[in-house]
Amino acid sequence: MRYALIIEYQGTQYHGWQKQPGIITVQETLETALSRVAAHEVKTFCAGRTDAGVHATAQVVHFDSDANRQPRHWLYGTNSYLPTDIRVRAGLQVSDNFHARFSALARRYVYIIHQGAFPSALFYQHLYWYPQPLNIEPMQLAASYLIGQHDFSAFRSSECQAYSPIRTMMHSHVWTQNEFVIFEFYANAFLHHMVRYLVGHLIEIGLDHKPPSWLKEVLENKMRQDQACTAPPQGLYLVEVQYDDSAQLTQTLRWPWLIHQ
Amino acid sequence: MRYALIIEYQGTQYHGWQKQPGIITVQETLETALSRVAAHEVKTFCAGRTDAGVHATAQVVHFDSDANRQPRHWLYGTNSYLPTDIRVRAGLQVSDNFHARFSALARRYVYIIHQGAFPSALFYQHLYWYPQPLNIEPMQLAASYLIGQHDFSAFRSSECQAYSPIRTMMHSHVWTQNEFVIFEFYANAFLHHMVRYLVGHLIEIGLDHKPPSWLKEVLENKMRQDQACTAPPQGLYLVEVQYDDSAQLTQTLRWPWLIHQ
Repeated sequence: MRYALIIEYQGTQYHGWQKQPGIITVQETLETALSRVAAHEVKTFCAGRTDAGVHATAQVVHFDSDANRQPRHWLYGTNSYLPTDIRVRAGLQVSDNFHARFSALARRYVYIIHQGAFPSALFYQHLYWYPQPLNIEPMQLAASYLIGQHDFSAFRSSECQAYSPIRTMMHSHVWTQNEFVIFEFYANAFLHHMVRYLVGHLIEIGLDHKPPSWLKEVLENKMRQDQACTAPPQGLYLVEVQYDDSAQLTQTLRWPWLIHQ
Repeated sequence: MRYALIIEYQGTQYHGWQKQPGIITVQETLETALSRVAAHEVKTFCAGRTDAGVHATAQVVHFDSDANRQPRHWLYGTNSYLPTDIRVRAGLQVSDNFHARFSALARRYVYIIHQGAFPSALFYQHLYWYPQPLNIEPMQLAASYLIGQHDFSAFRSSECQAYSPIRTMMHSHVWTQNEFVIFEFYANAFLHHMVRYLVGHLIEIGLDHKPPSWLKEVLENKMRQDQACTAPPQGLYLVEVQYDDSAQLTQTLRWPWLIHQ
């Protein structure tokens, strides 16, 4: 039997999603809990491998098990073995040809910058504190250049393992809400570090160091630029994975301050 | 010279505000940082002593120092010595008769319940997860009975050191926002555990275990009831302290999801 789960986690204490020897990752922690419920070793596959410190409100994973368990056993049982910073939000049985990664039609990421005079004592692990004022309109214009099918090689880390750098961006938005600047990217798939590079470039434009057209040039040149920072992980959230409706796995964003106003 | 500071903190890691031997408190941590900036021992007085695990977005403190420092030195210097879960948001010189506690005209507290199927992996330290559905209208009616001057003895812990149990409640609201139930109380002052007892009683009413009139009866009987829980600290925030305008110390609430819609 194949099962899929929707997972929320705070990435702060983890060295990213992917299992690696000798360090604590979300995948390893989840698989340990699932294996206790299954009473056999469970291997998971996720929709989007998040970096160290990156959060998710709706990561999707699948795994196989012939153990005699209902979806609710995976849900409640696994949560009882997980630490408080990882929660299974939903679980269901899926067809054997469902694959959390390869069946996904699109992913949505949100990045949140906090523009305060000081970093927040309450949410310093949930936001990127950036005190310099950012000009929203040039960033909005630049973000619109990303929409459509492009070669995103300029926004790809050297460790990226994707076969193709071609991605289709369906939505690319920047907006403000109180002290926050919020970026939202919705694409069929993302390259390694792509959102963090995009936000880093948009910050350069928000600072008026570069005009909006610069983003278009960088995109077209297909070369990584050194001028822009890689936005740090604590502001980044994987908030949605879109599947064919039959999978019943697409959930709305959970937190009101992550929703496009 | 007397100075006042506005402080934000996440209470999770602290045994409350007040300094006590052998345990880590917000006051002790703040005074250690201030003393390093002052190069002498600094003693602080706060507007509202918060319990272990309770948060603040705008706690106010005052202290005296004859060290040759500008308000910005207290601000930036102190922050450089503080852990990331305590931040000084503002600092200014005040008159020698200003007292963070006795000059305060009113305090505003917010309590946030998260009504999800599962506790949040991202905000479990910032919210009280309460999965049973709560009926808002009876809670709203009950909350309105608290407005005005009352003897709040029924909502006072046995350790409360206040001389009088009489308090004037200016605002008492309950509302929902997405998955959250938010309580807001604005009064001249609060008794020990008062907000947490009030929320515990309102939950009983939201569950339809008791009618709204029960809160009025409890208030009028001036006796603590055993039926209601003490709402846990992680949902509680001190969000505002009101002073005479001349003190320039009243700040707006910081986080958009803490603002009454």
